[in-house]
Amino acid sequence: MTEPFVVIGGDAAGMSAASKAKREDPSVDVVVFERGEWVSYAACGMPYYVKGDVDDLDDLVTVTPEEFRTERDIDLRTGEEVVDIDPDAEVVTVDADGETYEQPYGELLIATGASAIEPPFDGLELEGVFTIHDMDEADAIEEYVTERDLETAAIVGGGYVGIEMAEAMAAHDIDVHLYEMLPHVLQPFGEDVADVVEEHLRTHGVNLHLETAVSGFTGAKRVGGVELEDETVSADIVIVGVGVAPNVDLAEDAGIELGPTGAIATDEYGRTTAENVFAAGDCAEARHVVTGDPDHVPLALTANRAGRAIGQTVTGDPTPIGEIAGTAIVKAFDLGAARTGLLEDQGREAGFDPVSVTISASTRAHYYPGGAELTVTLVADRESGRLLGGTVVGREGAKRIDTVTMALHAGMTVTELQNADLAYAPPFSPVWDPVLTAAKVLAGKLE
Amino acid sequence: MTEPFVVIGGDAAGMSAASKAKREDPSVDVVVFERGEWVSYAACGMPYYVKGDVDDLDDLVTVTPEEFRTERDIDLRTGEEVVDIDPDAEVVTVDADGETYEQPYGELLIATGASAIEPPFDGLELEGVFTIHDMDEADAIEEYVTERDLETAAIVGGGYVGIEMAEAMAAHDIDVHLYEMLPHVLQPFGEDVADVVEEHLRTHGVNLHLETAVSGFTGAKRVGGVELEDETVSADIVIVGVGVAPNVDLAEDAGIELGPTGAIATDEYGRTTAENVFAAGDCAEARHVVTGDPDHVPLALTANRAGRAIGQTVTGDPTPIGEIAGTAIVKAFDLGAARTGLLEDQGREAGFDPVSVTISASTRAHYYPGGAELTVTLVADRESGRLLGGTVVGREGAKRIDTVTMALHAGMTVTELQNADLAYAPPFSPVWDPVLTAAKVLAGKLE
Repeated sequence: MTEPFVVIGGDAAGMSAASKAKREDPSVDVVVFERGEWVSYAACGMPYYVKGDVDDLDDLVTVTPEEFRTERDIDLRTGEEVVDIDPDAEVVTVDADGETYEQPYGELLIATGASAIEPPFDGLELEGVFTIHDMDEADAIEEYVTERDLETAAIVGGGYVGIEMAEAMAAHDIDVHLYEMLPHVLQPFGEDVADVVEEHLRTHGVNLHLETAVSGFTGAKRVGGVELEDETVSADIVIVGVGVAPNVDLAEDAGIELGPTGAIATDEYGRTTAENVFAAGDCAEARHVVTGDPDHVPLALTANRAGRAIGQTVTGDPTPIGEIAGTAIVKAFDLGAARTGLLEDQGREAGFDPVSVTISASTRAHYYPGGAELTVTLVADRESGRLLGGTVVGREGAKRIDTVTMALHAGMTVTELQNADLAYAPPFSPVWDPVLTAAKVLAGKLE
Repeated sequence: MTEPFVVIGGDAAGMSAASKAKREDPSVDVVVFERGEWVSYAACGMPYYVKGDVDDLDDLVTVTPEEFRTERDIDLRTGEEVVDIDPDAEVVTVDADGETYEQPYGELLIATGASAIEPPFDGLELEGVFTIHDMDEADAIEEYVTERDLETAAIVGGGYVGIEMAEAMAAHDIDVHLYEMLPHVLQPFGEDVADVVEEHLRTHGVNLHLETAVSGFTGAKRVGGVELEDETVSADIVIVGVGVAPNVDLAEDAGIELGPTGAIATDEYGRTTAENVFAAGDCAEARHVVTGDPDHVPLALTANRAGRAIGQTVTGDPTPIGEIAGTAIVKAFDLGAARTGLLEDQGREAGFDPVSVTISASTRAHYYPGGAELTVTLVADRESGRLLGGTVVGREGAKRIDTVTMALHAGMTVTELQNADLAYAPPFSPVWDPVLTAAKVLAGKLE
């Protein structure tokens, strides 16, 4: 008898793989272990639940555990945790309510995700101090906010989570203080985006404290203050969002190799260094389309796509997991900010000679009402003219980053991008889309 | 003494070329002949002036004649018409207020544009019957509409102009009847788009008369009716928008070759068959990125880009005019509709074996407020999997057609498009952007 396809982790990568395998070959047995109770949920939606834009936490669930079991015939075991992988014996050891048992696998997918980093702060355990690492935590934050009359929120970290939670707290009329150790928020988006976002955050009443290190939190049982270098400031709620780290212990303990980023190393099919063991999603690396090197960008689409490809591969149709461009987009109040590929510093690190331009242009024809200023940065390699990456930020049009991403996947030069026949009509774009204008200016600079 | 760079036509292609040539090499003499008085105006903005979204017709002018003369040092001769080209002698004959004179050229650009087609209808000369062929006509329509209490407008033709003018008329509380000979509006966008647009037009009170031929207009001095096959219906204003034809007489008379589309044939640098004579914009062909064949898509970006490239070429830096994908986008009340590349019929004509899918998906995460349904059609070649074209239509997100266009420029397969790392966050897209979802489904169909 053939052993089942076993999946560790029931979110984006895991459930995509499980579902795809079943759809491709209903005769394959698929077992999924999820140590929590939530599966297939949109973690990215949690800030909007806290904000109040999403009424019910269940709305963030795409497919329920029951639907996976009955409609998709997946043996989903929630509340059971894989505690050991034995790649030689091809079995995993499972902890189910304190009892352990062994589960053999034919093929295994490690989709253990990532966890919010908990810095070594004093007082992390205080009531009212949150990371936003899972659905239960999102639920707890929402409850904390709506059931109390909070005056001041401290957000620690100016990444996606920090920015999104600042917006969420402000929506509850809480005075928001955001603390970022670095000189700018949204570090991976570069300074051009950060400048625009920071000004916008301030306009919306967010108190930005850049280059400001937090060392801990004070309070008796419940948090009351944030410790900075020289002072302690008051805070009724603290949200820590300083990044995530891949959950790799299980893989590492099994002798599976990690890559240079610290996430699980994979090949173009998502295979790890252990035979018949795949890894996908926030715990795994993927290949960067510009550098060709392994990278770790824990985002939902990468996880979904890799999972889906692996589901196809294990049913006999080898399918590459695809390359990533490091594309990301974030909403900050009324702004959209997006990035893709390599910005100047990253380009230099990767051995290119990056040249960059930043332009601002309207998202619509200058005479057409309602347009917004879009700031576009493009980066290219001086010698080859190859596009390396870019960013956009504005009140509308942030999805135009996709044009830049497509150029990266195509390996286009700036001149090739400049010549793209993008859509124009006055309500949608100037004749030269802002991305094309940026390409024109950058091409001129490269001459 | 070197003869000047002479440009015939002072709109998008012409003024782009003139400006670029001067910017690249200020020592080059540039002479532009424009038979009208308006130069460098946004013809695409005219419907929005008529509608009332744009206050002043002058707002549609990017650069004034005076600015071209003084700031850009261009010898712009408005009100002067080139009536003959002699490519052997390298001179053009100019009519200036009835007096003719000869102007020698070193290099010549024909940028004579296109004209609204005037079908052989009875009563085209009646007061209140308009084509929307230039700024003076836009002005006249606006005046006619605002100074009279019109009850019924007849729009003849369901292309861009017809759709945009239907919206403009409706904004003035005029009862709109739109007559289209073909079974659907927006023929180049295909039926999937047409279905959505037609339903939307009806929702906004537009009376659609499909497969309905108009044969003429009735009225004493002023129009009062539209003649259909079996009846005459009342109309207080008529707008005829049945397409445009390239202005090629001047070129043809000079022995310059036209291409298969009837527009002026050009090579990749915009050169015609006559030495030192270029053609660009609505009067000229350009190369289609999918077929590699000459095509005639008279739109603003193509004109601007080709003009700019030619301005560069004539100053000693040979620059290709770029390829076109036949990308177009149009607003119909609250909808955006866009197309690019080859749809099924066109793909078949071009020798491909087209396979097509149409999907509908939200523009945002399903739980995030404010998303709109986007209908996406993608077409690919069965054998090679190469993407041929596509359309999108919806209340937001029509610019996502640019993703499809980029894939066409890159010569991507559907699988390659499916693997693009497009931007995702709940306020901007589902995890799988609707374009990616369409690619997934189409890839499945191609297997």
